[in-house]
Amino acid sequence: MIDEIGRRARNASYGLRQSTGAARRGALLEMAEGLTAAVGEIVEANAADMGQAKEEGITGALIDRLRLDQKRVAAMAAGLRSVAALPDPVGRETGGWSLYNGVRLHRVRVPLGVVAVIYEARPNVTADAAGLCMMSGNAVILRGSSYALRSNMAIAGTIRDSLSRAGLPADGVQLLEDTTRDGAKALMQATDWVDLLVPRGGPGLIAAVQADATVPTVIDGAGNCHVYVDAGADLDKALGIVVNAKVHRPGVCNAAETLLVHEAVAEKFVAEAARALMAEGVELRGDDRARELVPEMKPATEVDWATEYLDLVMAVRVLPDLDSAIDHVRQYGTGHTEAIVTDDRVAADRFVAAVDTAVVVVNASTRFTDGEEFGFGAEIGNSTQKLHVRGPMGLESLTSERYVLYGDGQVR
Amino acid sequence: MIDEIGRRARNASYGLRQSTGAARRGALLEMAEGLTAAVGEIVEANAADMGQAKEEGITGALIDRLRLDQKRVAAMAAGLRSVAALPDPVGRETGGWSLYNGVRLHRVRVPLGVVAVIYEARPNVTADAAGLCMMSGNAVILRGSSYALRSNMAIAGTIRDSLSRAGLPADGVQLLEDTTRDGAKALMQATDWVDLLVPRGGPGLIAAVQADATVPTVIDGAGNCHVYVDAGADLDKALGIVVNAKVHRPGVCNAAETLLVHEAVAEKFVAEAARALMAEGVELRGDDRARELVPEMKPATEVDWATEYLDLVMAVRVLPDLDSAIDHVRQYGTGHTEAIVTDDRVAADRFVAAVDTAVVVVNASTRFTDGEEFGFGAEIGNSTQKLHVRGPMGLESLTSERYVLYGDGQVR
Repeated sequence: MIDEIGRRARNASYGLRQSTGAARRGALLEMAEGLTAAVGEIVEANAADMGQAKEEGITGALIDRLRLDQKRVAAMAAGLRSVAALPDPVGRETGGWSLYNGVRLHRVRVPLGVVAVIYEARPNVTADAAGLCMMSGNAVILRGSSYALRSNMAIAGTIRDSLSRAGLPADGVQLLEDTTRDGAKALMQATDWVDLLVPRGGPGLIAAVQADATVPTVIDGAGNCHVYVDAGADLDKALGIVVNAKVHRPGVCNAAETLLVHEAVAEKFVAEAARALMAEGVELRGDDRARELVPEMKPATEVDWATEYLDLVMAVRVLPDLDSAIDHVRQYGTGHTEAIVTDDRVAADRFVAAVDTAVVVVNASTRFTDGEEFGFGAEIGNSTQKLHVRGPMGLESLTSERYVLYGDGQVR
Repeated sequence: MIDEIGRRARNASYGLRQSTGAARRGALLEMAEGLTAAVGEIVEANAADMGQAKEEGITGALIDRLRLDQKRVAAMAAGLRSVAALPDPVGRETGGWSLYNGVRLHRVRVPLGVVAVIYEARPNVTADAAGLCMMSGNAVILRGSSYALRSNMAIAGTIRDSLSRAGLPADGVQLLEDTTRDGAKALMQATDWVDLLVPRGGPGLIAAVQADATVPTVIDGAGNCHVYVDAGADLDKALGIVVNAKVHRPGVCNAAETLLVHEAVAEKFVAEAARALMAEGVELRGDDRARELVPEMKPATEVDWATEYLDLVMAVRVLPDLDSAIDHVRQYGTGHTEAIVTDDRVAADRFVAAVDTAVVVVNASTRFTDGEEFGFGAEIGNSTQKLHVRGPMGLESLTSERYVLYGDGQVR
C-alpha cells in the first residue's frame, strides 16, 4: 500500500523537479481557485466529519480546530495565493566557483523529492502543506487525522484536480486514507520513498515520530523558552517583553515559560512584573527569593523549570548573576528561543555566545520566532534540531543544495 | 560511562563555542607541533598495535592502513596545519535583515556542539577528525578500532596536551577506550550528548549505524556512480573520462562502476573504451549489445547494475536513448555522483535536471566529487543523504545556522 503510494509520489517528484517556477506558481493559483469553487463540497464533507466527531464525544478546542466554514476555506485559498507570491527556492544558485583545472562548479537548490506530513485535526494543513511542498517542487504524502478524513479527502481531491488542470502531476499531492496508527507507522518507515517527514502536532505525535520514524525527519520540538532580565535591563522594556512573551498567545511554542531575574533588579522588577502578569490572569510559581518578593506566588519545583506550560502559567526564578542564568537556560532550555533583556552590551554578547539555541533574542519578545515574522511567508514548522535547518522553516527548508560541475574533458 | 564522557564533551563544547578563530587556529598548530614532537612515542605505540594485529593474523591492506611511521605522522601534522589555514566557518553571517518593526535579524554559523566519529583501522583519522572538529568549534568523541587502540591513545593524548597548552579544554578531544560493539552502540544512542555522528568506514559500519544510531547522523553511503556517454559526446573526451573515472583510484566511492553508452555511438565507442579499460586491467561485464561489440566481456546481470565494485571491474550497458540512461541512473544510482559526456547542451540540461544526486558532472570525471578538489580543504566525509549536507563535507558541514535578533523592546 505505502509502496504503491510511495512509487507514485516518486514518479510525480520527477516531473515536479523539472517543472518551472512559473508552472508551480500557476498550479498554486489554480489550487486556490479550485478550493474556492469547491467550498460547498468541502464544507459539506466537513459537516459529516463534525457530526461524527460530536457523536464520538469530541468537544471544545478539538471541534473548533476541525471546523471549516466559508471563511476558513477562503483563508486556505488566500494562504495558497500568498505562497505563490514567495520567491521560488528551486534553482537558486547558492555558490559557484571554478576549480583549479577550469571545471566550473555550481551549488544549486533542488527539491528534496518526496515530503511526508503527518498532522492532527486541523484540515487546513492539507492545503497549507500541499502548497508549500508544491511551490518547492516536492511531491507530498499527507496523513491527517481520522476525524478530518472526509474534509481532507475533499480538499486533497480538489487540489489534485487543480494540479492536473495546471499541467502538473496529480500524484504530487496524495492523501493517505489509512488513518490507523499502523498506517502512520508505515509512512514513518517508508525509507525507500520519503526524503523528509514533517510531523505537525502535539507532543504525542512528536514522541511517536521520535520512537518509530526511520525516514529523515525535522522535529518541531518543545519550546521551553526563557526571558532573562539582566542587571543592565531597561525595566520598562523588560516588563513589556515579559508580558507579551507570556500572554500574547500562551498556547504556542514561542511563548515564554520561565522568567529569570538578576538579583540586582529583582526587588524593583519582580513585584511589578508579577502584578502585570497576574492582571492578565497568569498563575506564577516562584523560587524562594521570588516568593519573598511576591508571597502570592506558589512555590516552584524542579518540575516547573522543565515544563512547557503552553498555558497562562509562568515560573519565576531570581539568580545571582548572568552565569547562573546561562546555566539555567543550558539545563532546562529546549533549543527553541531564549531572550535576554539588557542594555549592557557585554552581558548581551556573553548570553548570545553562550546559549545554544535556534533563536536568541536581545531586547525583544520570544514571540518573533516565526516564519511570517522572519519574512519567510508561511512556515512548514519550527525546527529545534541542529541538522538541516534550525528555527522557522520556510520554503528553503524543503530543498537541498547539490553540485553541478561543467567540464571540458577534465580528469584527475 | 558514555554519560560521563558525554557530559565532559558538552562542557568542553561550551568553552569551544565561545573561543575565537585565532585561538582554535593556534590550537591546531600546537597539535601539529605536539604530534611532531611525540613521533617516537606514537610510532612505538603503533608498533605494539601492529605486533598484536599480526599475531591475530591480520595481513595485507588492513595492516598497511594501520601502520604509522615518521612520514605518516608528519603527514598528520601537515594535515592539521592545512586545516588551520582554512577560513573559519564559525561566526560567519549567512544572512541578515530587518523585520518590519526594526528588529535586526542575523543568521550566523555556530558549531554543532558535540560531534562523534566512529572509524576503522586508519589511526590518522584520530588527528584528522580532531582537527576538523576543533577548527569548527566542536568537541569530538572519537571511537577508533580495537586494532589501533594504542596508536589512537598516543595520538589523542598528545592532542589533549596540546589543547591544554593552547588554552582550550582538553576534553574537546576524547577517545573512547571501550572498543567493543556495545561501546560503539552506546555512542550511537547517546542522544543527550551527541549532536552529530559521522561514521567513517566500510559498508559494515554504515549498516550498523543505520540500524542502531538514534543520534543525528550523516551517512557517507555507497557510490554506485555512472558515466553516460551520450549520442552527442566528443568520444575522445569520453574515453579519457571513462578510463579516469574507473581506474584512477578504483577503491573509492567516487570511482565509476557502470558505463552507459547511447546506441548511436556504441559501435564507435564501446570497443575502443573496452580496449583502453582492459589494457588497464579492468574486467568488463556487458549487456547483450555490449557483448556483441566486445565478445570478451562477461555477461552482466541485474546484480552488476546494483553493485559498487570498488575494484577494477566495470559494467557496460548500451541504451537506446537519453531517457533510458536517466531511468537506469534513477533505478541504480545511490545519489553520489553521476556523469554525462555530451556536447549537446539540451541533452546535458535534461540529464542534470532529471538526475537526483549530490553531484552531477557534465564532461568531466566522477573523481572530482571530493572536498579537496572542491576547494573545501580536508573533508570529514561525503554525504549521500539529502538533509543537512549533500556531497563533500567540509568544515561548514560541522556547523549549523542559527538566528540572533536585536531589538529595542519590540513585542507582538
